[in-house]
Amino acid sequence: MIIVIQCVDQVGLVASITDVLAKAQLNIVSMREHVDQAQNLFFMRLEVTHSNERDTLEQKLRAILPPDSIININPLPNKKVVVMVTKEYHCLADILIRNYYGTLGATVQAVIGNHAVLEDICKRFDMPFFLASHEQISKDEFEGKIAAIIDQFEPDYIVLAKFMRILSPALVAKFPMRIVNIHHSFLPAFIGASPYKQAFERGVKLIGATAHFVSNELDEGPIIAQQIISVNHSYTAGDMVKAGKEIETAVLATALKLVFEDRVFVYKNKTVVFD
Amino acid sequence: MIIVIQCVDQVGLVASITDVLAKAQLNIVSMREHVDQAQNLFFMRLEVTHSNERDTLEQKLRAILPPDSIININPLPNKKVVVMVTKEYHCLADILIRNYYGTLGATVQAVIGNHAVLEDICKRFDMPFFLASHEQISKDEFEGKIAAIIDQFEPDYIVLAKFMRILSPALVAKFPMRIVNIHHSFLPAFIGASPYKQAFERGVKLIGATAHFVSNELDEGPIIAQQIISVNHSYTAGDMVKAGKEIETAVLATALKLVFEDRVFVYKNKTVVFD
Amino acid sequence: MIIVIQCVDQVGLVASITDVLAKAQLNIVSMREHVDQAQNLFFMRLEVTHSNERDTLEQKLRAILPPDSIININPLPNKKVVVMVTKEYHCLADILIRNYYGTLGATVQAVIGNHAVLEDICKRFDMPFFLASHEQISKDEFEGKIAAIIDQFEPDYIVLAKFMRILSPALVAKFPMRIVNIHHSFLPAFIGASPYKQAFERGVKLIGATAHFVSNELDEGPIIAQQIISVNHSYTAGDMVKAGKEIETAVLATALKLVFEDRVFVYKNKTVVFD
Amino acid sequence: MIIVIQCVDQVGLVASITDVLAKAQLNIVSMREHVDQAQNLFFMRLEVTHSNERDTLEQKLRAILPPDSIININPLPNKKVVVMVTKEYHCLADILIRNYYGTLGATVQAVIGNHAVLEDICKRFDMPFFLASHEQISKDEFEGKIAAIIDQFEPDYIVLAKFMRILSPALVAKFPMRIVNIHHSFLPAFIGASPYKQAFERGVKLIGATAHFVSNELDEGPIIAQQIISVNHSYTAGDMVKAGKEIETAVLATALKLVFEDRVFVYKNKTVVFD
Repeated sequence: MIIVIQCVDQVGLVASITDVLAKAQLNIVSMREHVDQAQNLFFMRLEVTHSNERDTLEQKLRAILPPDSIININPLPNKKVVVMVTKEYHCLADILIRNYYGTLGATVQAVIGNHAVLEDICKRFDMPFFLASHEQISKDEFEGKIAAIIDQFEPDYIVLAKFMRILSPALVAKFPMRIVNIHHSFLPAFIGASPYKQAFERGVKLIGATAHFVSNELDEGPIIAQQIISVNHSYTAGDMVKAGKEIETAVLATALKLVFEDRVFVYKNKTVVFD
Repeated sequence: MIIVIQCVDQVGLVASITDVLAKAQLNIVSMREHVDQAQNLFFMRLEVTHSNERDTLEQKLRAILPPDSIININPLPNKKVVVMVTKEYHCLADILIRNYYGTLGATVQAVIGNHAVLEDICKRFDMPFFLASHEQISKDEFEGKIAAIIDQFEPDYIVLAKFMRILSPALVAKFPMRIVNIHHSFLPAFIGASPYKQAFERGVKLIGATAHFVSNELDEGPIIAQQIISVNHSYTAGDMVKAGKEIETAVLATALKLVFEDRVFVYKNKTVVFD
Repeated sequence: MIIVIQCVDQVGLVASITDVLAKAQLNIVSMREHVDQAQNLFFMRLEVTHSNERDTLEQKLRAILPPDSIININPLPNKKVVVMVTKEYHCLADILIRNYYGTLGATVQAVIGNHAVLEDICKRFDMPFFLASHEQISKDEFEGKIAAIIDQFEPDYIVLAKFMRILSPALVAKFPMRIVNIHHSFLPAFIGASPYKQAFERGVKLIGATAHFVSNELDEGPIIAQQIISVNHSYTAGDMVKAGKEIETAVLATALKLVFEDRVFVYKNKTVVFD
Repeated sequence: MIIVIQCVDQVGLVASITDVLAKAQLNIVSMREHVDQAQNLFFMRLEVTHSNERDTLEQKLRAILPPDSIININPLPNKKVVVMVTKEYHCLADILIRNYYGTLGATVQAVIGNHAVLEDICKRFDMPFFLASHEQISKDEFEGKIAAIIDQFEPDYIVLAKFMRILSPALVAKFPMRIVNIHHSFLPAFIGASPYKQAFERGVKLIGATAHFVSNELDEGPIIAQQIISVNHSYTAGDMVKAGKEIETAVLATALKLVFEDRVFVYKNKTVVFD
């Protein structure tokens, strides 16, 4: 059973939290904590032996924690996810495989694409696919279509798996820190469009990908995970795009694992990640 | 102030430890713990605000911990180190620089070499150098010389910085888990002599270095840190030796930082490292 | 068009080879060469503008090269591959996805499994799956079944994608340096069975995977590619197995790309890889 | 003997170059070439057996190459270097050690510092140190001091080893693509001052360093080498600065090795690096 806590820091927090657990006969399997001194914020993630007294436990913790503390108790990862895609298959395929074999740590309920291209692979995995084309309609109508589909599923998370349209603040606001995007550069370098082309022109020797929560600033949301690979002069921009797909797939997979295992906390546009 | 604890695991350990700290008005700056389920062992490292009541604190902790618990309270890293060398300068030079600028996390008291080659660089850093040649004397006499020098300094740790002689069990037994060696391969591959030549012949695409505590089995002691670099067909064994020096320097530096910051626990020939 | 050459080294080789190309009006897109001084062997890989005079070109090259030179001219990667599997899906799924989208650099003709478990995912990709169970028959009969299936397809390469049975020398001899295996350790460490368990017991801080050509010595064949990931004390052997799958998938994918692009030469149980 | 060539690409270049070498009885030890298709530029680096006929060889090559080709023949690396520093010791110390032991691939003639702090370590290596303070004088006077010192030595390269003043276009123009700087970020992220503070505020999970040739745009010159290390939420900006020093040292060392071995070509604000 995973317990995550985020609150104002004060002396004796760990003692009182672990005292509640000890009294409830819960054994600590693993524990990670972090205090941001500057912000006076406390973060903790515990894995404890299972308990049927989830609500009682939450009450007892709330009783010894500062007011307005965030406490979340999740028995096991069972999050529901809607994935959004455009044309590229690599991130989606990786997610569909993991979802199919039960190793994603969450359940993909449906895939929404603004193109029909990826419907085929979804079918091959018996995954519901919804086409929501953006062509020849206003942004509002487009987002209306998307919102309607998402509403059917009430997902815990939305994963933008190389989904190439920019979501409006309205839509983002419905899922604060619950939309994970993979951006094909090592942020904050190469924000926006054609990052590989920008990377090629700058002549960098490393390219990367960044998984982050979506905020209202394009590519500016809290970073969850980043990785890089080496490139060299022999790479055209097209070669960088190709090589980049491998790293986009890997980084998104890494980030989703962290998020679905409740290892990621967000504050002040940054994350605390207990990996 | 750093507190490290190693003991048999039992329910409520974290609660009782942190309770002692809270009652002593000590704020937890950082905390890492690990339970080895199979061995039923508990490991914890805490950084807490400084206290002048070191001995009282140790008593109070001992009172709530299982018998035979290992408790160590070190105000700040101030460990004394003797370094042993042979002919290669790279690891020694890195250590001398860090020691000189106070960023080693320990104090090097002296350098012992079985060749005179590295006396020069020691002099340039006003570092006492002791020549203890192994030539034309028995192993016992050789170790006698070394032991005599070490005894003068009573170091906390001995660092074998590409020291190429094998220490006898007797000498090792005087410093159990307090001798750090850098082996020029990615253990357990290529144990013993000429690991780069072995690596070259096997045609591996990665070579590495391993820092470990010395035990009585050659290159078999608990591993502290390892790193690798890529190599390819264009590397001769000599090229691998050259490239390998960079990684040996880096891995030894990493390992020493971990050890001197009390981040390393040893049990059953393995380490727990809170990095 | 790719030209690969392997022969005894002699002065002026590059000049005479490139002279043949220049006279044939072929522009060099990229060129890599290596001379193993100790073995006096020359290796070269060229990408040149396409030519319809493939056979003439080969003759002309043969005329200026030493006798017994290996010359291969392949217009574009169009290799045929049979994949062999047991129960684990991760490497197979990655290969099926790449094959499906045409980014494998080769064509998978069929999958042979000694268990039926992975038939399902093959079906989802319309990939012919052949069950060749090893249970309750002799090794000879088992290999007879496998050989019969392989013979139907006459593949250029056989990929052992976590195929867990050991192939006999007879079968290996039919495909010298044309069987690629992924071994779940960083060779030459942890040869044989349960490498992650061995890694766990040794307490290594890095685990890896190695893709190599199969020879008659188990896990001793020429290494094509290797990668590692960091692990730590918190990993059980089971955690290492899980984390290891990611790296096995990545390394096998890397190795296949290199092999299918004719970037890999084999000699003396080692490889020259022009990546 | 190393031969580097940079020119407009044309068919048969490799053939004619290697023909000249073959006729001069020079054996090719290693060869790397690259054609930038878009720019129609050809780059080549050859290591050949030594020849006393350096000038004749250059003439013969010039005869078969396009006009305005860049041809450089350097018997062995013997470049002269002046290093400029401010207060931080780490990059300088690494360079002084390598220079002292003859493994730098160049000779450091002198060190210029705008503070006196690093004079001590220079003395310890018998390295001439020149103090050129920037305080209380105009930029022109400051650069005048520096230029006067540099002129004494006529170095081939200037290495800015955490030298924190910005050089004027006039000074840069004297050493086009011959000034190597280490910038403490992964360019193009975090240009300018306090990159670690910027990195900390953005909440990146990787920080890096970039070695580049100095041009007139701050931190915009052609990139030679880049590396990154992982960081996490537990790093304060100060921790990032500390960790970053390790990577700055490593990247600058890597870049200098490449430059001093004539492995780096510059064009259009990018580099071709034959590593």
